[in-house]
Amino acid sequence: MDVAKKIVLVVLDGGGDRPTVGKKTPLMAASRPFLDHMATEGILGIMDVIAPGTPPGSDTAHLSLLGYAPEEAYTGRGPFEAAGVGINVRPGDIAFRGNFATVKDGMVVDRRAGRISDTRQLAEAIRTRVHLDCEFIFKESVGHRAALVLRGEELSPMIRSTDPLHAGEPIVSSTPLKDDDSSTRTARIVNEFTRQVHLILKDLPINRERERHGQLPANMVLLRGAGAVPHLVPFEQRTGLKAAVIAATALVIGIGKLTGMQYFPTKGATGHINSNIEGKVDNVNKALKDHDFILLNIKGADEAGHDGNFDVKSKFLSHVDRVLSKLDIDDSIITVITADHSTPVSLKEHSGDPVPFLIRGKGVRTDQTNEFNEFYAAQGGMHRIRGLDMMPVLMDLLGLRKKFGA
Amino acid sequence: MDVAKKIVLVVLDGGGDRPTVGKKTPLMAASRPFLDHMATEGILGIMDVIAPGTPPGSDTAHLSLLGYAPEEAYTGRGPFEAAGVGINVRPGDIAFRGNFATVKDGMVVDRRAGRISDTRQLAEAIRTRVHLDCEFIFKESVGHRAALVLRGEELSPMIRSTDPLHAGEPIVSSTPLKDDDSSTRTARIVNEFTRQVHLILKDLPINRERERHGQLPANMVLLRGAGAVPHLVPFEQRTGLKAAVIAATALVIGIGKLTGMQYFPTKGATGHINSNIEGKVDNVNKALKDHDFILLNIKGADEAGHDGNFDVKSKFLSHVDRVLSKLDIDDSIITVITADHSTPVSLKEHSGDPVPFLIRGKGVRTDQTNEFNEFYAAQGGMHRIRGLDMMPVLMDLLGLRKKFGA
Repeated sequence: MDVAKKIVLVVLDGGGDRPTVGKKTPLMAASRPFLDHMATEGILGIMDVIAPGTPPGSDTAHLSLLGYAPEEAYTGRGPFEAAGVGINVRPGDIAFRGNFATVKDGMVVDRRAGRISDTRQLAEAIRTRVHLDCEFIFKESVGHRAALVLRGEELSPMIRSTDPLHAGEPIVSSTPLKDDDSSTRTARIVNEFTRQVHLILKDLPINRERERHGQLPANMVLLRGAGAVPHLVPFEQRTGLKAAVIAATALVIGIGKLTGMQYFPTKGATGHINSNIEGKVDNVNKALKDHDFILLNIKGADEAGHDGNFDVKSKFLSHVDRVLSKLDIDDSIITVITADHSTPVSLKEHSGDPVPFLIRGKGVRTDQTNEFNEFYAAQGGMHRIRGLDMMPVLMDLLGLRKKFGA
Repeated sequence: MDVAKKIVLVVLDGGGDRPTVGKKTPLMAASRPFLDHMATEGILGIMDVIAPGTPPGSDTAHLSLLGYAPEEAYTGRGPFEAAGVGINVRPGDIAFRGNFATVKDGMVVDRRAGRISDTRQLAEAIRTRVHLDCEFIFKESVGHRAALVLRGEELSPMIRSTDPLHAGEPIVSSTPLKDDDSSTRTARIVNEFTRQVHLILKDLPINRERERHGQLPANMVLLRGAGAVPHLVPFEQRTGLKAAVIAATALVIGIGKLTGMQYFPTKGATGHINSNIEGKVDNVNKALKDHDFILLNIKGADEAGHDGNFDVKSKFLSHVDRVLSKLDIDDSIITVITADHSTPVSLKEHSGDPVPFLIRGKGVRTDQTNEFNEFYAAQGGMHRIRGLDMMPVLMDLLGLRKKFGA
């Protein structure tokens, strides 16, 4: 079999958009010599990562792109965040994303506790002094972020989270979203966590110190994204491909870890537009030496989309184009460039618009398109596929798909 | 209604491919005056005969193209092969493809018994002297091929077949693939068949004779492709179209027969690149006189793909183009040219790449494409459809689809 042997899947997080300035999308307005060269050699298409008109989350989108039906695997974002921050989650665990926050008289003053950066002492106090009616694991992450895992029997993700999502609103009292014992019990445990965390944090010296310096105290942890850790068949077991994940955000790292991929940390990878994406591309080149499948997530475009900043998004994509040109790829590697979802600057949120994609490498049919953006992708030879189609298509290019029939 | 009245569905078996020599596919490199003329007058598209990235078997592919969901109708290739060699199979029968083979001390020496050509006496010996714990029908086919049907209660297709698929390996002892009585019983019957067949064949005078002449004895029948004969609603009952099948391979003939089509045998139709495809086209023209739907399968491109021979595949497709130009078709006949799957010469196996198709005839919309190959098909006005979409599209062109709603 004369086929390609490896796959590099590059996900420009939130990279898709809508025509805005001069009827162009940020990707259309970007300088793309490398991506256009790839488009010329490869084939383009558009992809409904979930389904037409459905805005994907980054979590469900990445699961789909990796071939895991989110309808089966996904109950909430918490499990992937928790795995991403380094908690060794187990199937059945109930996991949450958490924010260190400032509260006063039951109201949320600041959801990020004045963008606190070092929460190690606070997290340690929670770990040692909180006592719940089940085993729990709490871990701080970058900035104000953290993750909580509840472990044991009779737990459920079907509960209301405590984060009201907006400052000025009261802390949400968790309630069961399903009328069963485990949901009722889990809501009670979460409320107990909230109560104890506030009692412990509010009087910690570090918070007193912050207040003395006019900083907001981190006297609460708000929880959201409750989910049950799914049992995911490891990616390598499903595909035979030894896989690596290169990403900055806990979510994508967590999805990689939960599917058994090796995580290559990148110094200076922040998930922002100032991220060290050169370092990430170096890591891809390193990982390619002894891995067959590399998932590279580049986050900045999503952030610029959420900020509604066309120029920043477009310039970041031009920067990505320059950096991606340093990928050590040739015909023996199936390279895919796509996005997990569109984050139109006009919307400042994920949209259900299809994302553009290109596939290039040995055996890939070419088409007449020579530019990589939303406009040309819609003319591409792959037409329109779904996110869950991507892995079968790529596996087939490696000659690894099983025939249905004889 | 001013609509076309008939359909000719031409399946270039394994005709699709990947860009290989000079970035062209064999079909792109072929001379195609007729097909390009059809493309100019008709509309093109690409088709996932099963699903994106799923390599179809010829069996599941033809079922899909004829509108039978293989997920429902298909348990294995045996039933279609058995029907194709002329066994009058019944729903519920368990059927196998078989090879006359040479074995020694339980090991397979040659899966084709030195490409034996006349197995009539051997088959007759099996029919008269083998005694099983159920009714059975055994029939020789062309060359070393044969088919076995087991009939009765308590039989199951969920068993391991006896053919190891490679010479130098031991005959497989059949075992149940499902923990139930019927699978256990069927595996036992199959092993008993294997035992008796060897005892009977090894001492037959014809085999002694072969050995004296230095030829390999045909002292075994290896079985594979176990499947239960499905109940298929006859094609004419489903569509109202009186149908005919013109093909060389037992598989496609069998699918035609099992769906109630009339089989038009063609002298010299071999399924190889030397096949009498002129005769097949003559048969199409003959069948068109009193049939409404003709399935024409032309096999050679698949063989060349499996052999990995680009030039042979491309030249065969040029030859096909010349011969198809003799089809007696006009605007009143919806003509479809497509493939059941791609068999890329670079892969030597079926792939999950979409296949190109064209549709031409009265009422068909046209598009801007004027060439028939994978590259232009991907720009065609039909975009990308699935195999199961084809029959509804064709029936609709005949004005025969039932309105959904009012």
